[in-house]
Amino acid sequence: MSLPSTAHRVVVIGSGFGGLSATQALDHEGVAVTLIDRTPHHLFQPLLYQVATGILSEGEITPPTREVLRRQKNARVIVGEVTDIDLSRRLVTSHSGELTTVTSYDSLVVAAGSTHSYFGHPQFEVHAPGMKSIDDALRIRGAIYGAFETAELVKDDSERMPWLTFVVVGAGPTGVEMAGQLVELSRRSLDRNFRSFDPSTARVVLLEAGPQVLSTFAPSLSRRTLRDLTRLGVDVRLNSPVVDVDELGVTVRSADGSGTERIEARTKVWAAGVRASPLGGLLADATDSPRNRAGQVDVLPDCSLRDRPEVFVVGDMMHLSVPGVAQVAIQSGRFVARQIVARVEGRPTERSIRYRDKGSLATISRFRAVASIGPLRLAGTIAWLLWLFVHLIYLVCFKNRLLVLIHWVISFLGRGRQERTAPAPTPPTTHSEAQPSLLRKAAS
Amino acid sequence: MSLPSTAHRVVVIGSGFGGLSATQALDHEGVAVTLIDRTPHHLFQPLLYQVATGILSEGEITPPTREVLRRQKNARVIVGEVTDIDLSRRLVTSHSGELTTVTSYDSLVVAAGSTHSYFGHPQFEVHAPGMKSIDDALRIRGAIYGAFETAELVKDDSERMPWLTFVVVGAGPTGVEMAGQLVELSRRSLDRNFRSFDPSTARVVLLEAGPQVLSTFAPSLSRRTLRDLTRLGVDVRLNSPVVDVDELGVTVRSADGSGTERIEARTKVWAAGVRASPLGGLLADATDSPRNRAGQVDVLPDCSLRDRPEVFVVGDMMHLSVPGVAQVAIQSGRFVARQIVARVEGRPTERSIRYRDKGSLATISRFRAVASIGPLRLAGTIAWLLWLFVHLIYLVCFKNRLLVLIHWVISFLGRGRQERTAPAPTPPTTHSEAQPSLLRKAAS
Repeated sequence: MSLPSTAHRVVVIGSGFGGLSATQALDHEGVAVTLIDRTPHHLFQPLLYQVATGILSEGEITPPTREVLRRQKNARVIVGEVTDIDLSRRLVTSHSGELTTVTSYDSLVVAAGSTHSYFGHPQFEVHAPGMKSIDDALRIRGAIYGAFETAELVKDDSERMPWLTFVVVGAGPTGVEMAGQLVELSRRSLDRNFRSFDPSTARVVLLEAGPQVLSTFAPSLSRRTLRDLTRLGVDVRLNSPVVDVDELGVTVRSADGSGTERIEARTKVWAAGVRASPLGGLLADATDSPRNRAGQVDVLPDCSLRDRPEVFVVGDMMHLSVPGVAQVAIQSGRFVARQIVARVEGRPTERSIRYRDKGSLATISRFRAVASIGPLRLAGTIAWLLWLFVHLIYLVCFKNRLLVLIHWVISFLGRGRQERTAPAPTPPTTHSEAQPSLLRKAAS
Repeated sequence: MSLPSTAHRVVVIGSGFGGLSATQALDHEGVAVTLIDRTPHHLFQPLLYQVATGILSEGEITPPTREVLRRQKNARVIVGEVTDIDLSRRLVTSHSGELTTVTSYDSLVVAAGSTHSYFGHPQFEVHAPGMKSIDDALRIRGAIYGAFETAELVKDDSERMPWLTFVVVGAGPTGVEMAGQLVELSRRSLDRNFRSFDPSTARVVLLEAGPQVLSTFAPSLSRRTLRDLTRLGVDVRLNSPVVDVDELGVTVRSADGSGTERIEARTKVWAAGVRASPLGGLLADATDSPRNRAGQVDVLPDCSLRDRPEVFVVGDMMHLSVPGVAQVAIQSGRFVARQIVARVEGRPTERSIRYRDKGSLATISRFRAVASIGPLRLAGTIAWLLWLFVHLIYLVCFKNRLLVLIHWVISFLGRGRQERTAPAPTPPTTHSEAQPSLLRKAAS
């Protein structure tokens, strides 16, 4: 607000790791930043599975973007859904309920992230929701606890088992964490909660199309994870691609390729595919840039679009040979912020982003995780403690950390889950239809 | 489960203060209890306004009923909506999605509580939601924070003010607490969050049809509350009954009776009327008992229905000359549990419930409350500390207390609100349509 109106205008689309990092890296610089996102909050996505399984509240992993940026005087926040980017006139159009906002930019950072991909089967979504937003996580929370409620009421065991079978599709970090948590939930947290059945008889099936779990990790950690999951009681099926999903269960191609197998399961969670935000298509079409199968946009080594040096794509949306993890989003967000400042100040820019791999982590269950840091390969309790430490450090809002830690003590040392309540079901929407949560009033 | 199948069967409808107290008072007694509620949780209703204003998470005031009762071996829980009570055949019918459950009883405790009343104007509900459930509170949370988001985007001040005007209808404890929190929220919590306006310019209007706020309290406390609210910046309008509510605002009859006045306000919260659960009508019709204007059922002094000594009505649903507060529900729940045990054991029962008034409390804002305990009348910080202490003591689940306390430290000593995130809007349903939150799967 104290900036001259002639300040270089940066528009950032997305308040995830990439967009928020870019915005914060522009603090105290002589630019005016507008951050646009459909939600009013940052989302600490790596812990979304803990909201879905009742360990954390939604507030604990969603610091309001305005609150994070309240002292950054050169930043403003618009809660709205970006519907158009005009690259020639340098305009971003966003919709907030019935209000339309058009924002001009001198530099644009597109960090709209990714959504789940059903590999050409969008009809799976209603039965096997993915987990990319708070609404997704709360919907899954309701489905999980609701399945146990129904299991308490049905009369015979054959009817009950489909309600006590939980299928997780995809054995990447999210799928592994989800499967591990479902076991903990049924074996420990729900102890003595039911009278007609023993919740520890619940079955958790982890389906993976490929030949291993955590395929991006070192083979030794991948094998260790498979062993730990199996010991925990997860029914892990490798080489088992899903061919159909309906209300009552899933159909998978058998591991030996001979036919299909049916798994009766009322609750399914999709953790299999990722696809860049539809805004990627818009950028690609406007610049005749190719996109890869995951919908990511081809960018130059400095994250800018070919022939559009003022437009940057960061994080999950960019197609560079780097993994789709928070660290990539954070580093690319900060990198493009530095590029923008260098240009504005007339200093030379860097030719290409250098990604520093800080390692990978995945939890399996309490006290068990795998970690890969440089040449180090860790597994078990030490990896889990590292996971705990890293996630507490990275939680954006300091005040949240203490609450998260207490919830973890309750859930990991004790057996309780404090956040089992789910709001009333909303009909699942596809991501392109989703409206910003907080703007209902404007929309009504 | 270890009880003989011939044990006396008690069915309790409602997991609020009345129903849960009755159930817990039957622990270790030779009866088999079935508790039926449409939600899977107890609700600590006195703190619902803190969920609505972003201080507490929904999990903190909703311990799962199963978890509360996990060690009570003679109790089972059914999550379902009670749709019929057959007093002659002693059967309760409940619906959980597509599942129908019929439960027989020897004694019945009806503790289904109350919902808000719009005094014959049900069309007000969609614009001025009441606050009786978690879904209500989350809807109001979304509306409040969403109004500020829209205020940031609208272009001119005349358009902005209706988004920054919050009307609370009804100056009982809930209305007073809500109005106080809205002031705190706009004056302190949202500090520096917005760039186009100063959130402390938000206007909070508290409308009361009667001549005073907190009319059930002593006149001195009522006057003190009015003074504190006014000093805080709440625009309190006494003798101002609401005659119309629409999307854009409310119309009130002027205090001097000369005409009507219009208040443009996008966000309205209804805290005015209370009406007993529709099950009250069912009981009254079946026994030809009268009900009062609030839909409460006439009961004998021992809380039983006339000519149906095995059916008890407790808490908000019963018509006895006692206030509609948590203490009445708790005491009547425990009283009828004792009556049931006495009858089962062939001991004499008591003729009538004796309500011990433990006092009343209402908070106005941080550090300000009013309290009435026996002959004592307290106001200010001392009353507020008492409020803090009493509410922590009564929070049902021990583990919640620490988290609630931390959230209070953050919000009352600091300025933060950790739970600003609201799930996506659901179309408001009337209470008779509402489905149990966790049973979506069965219903689909």
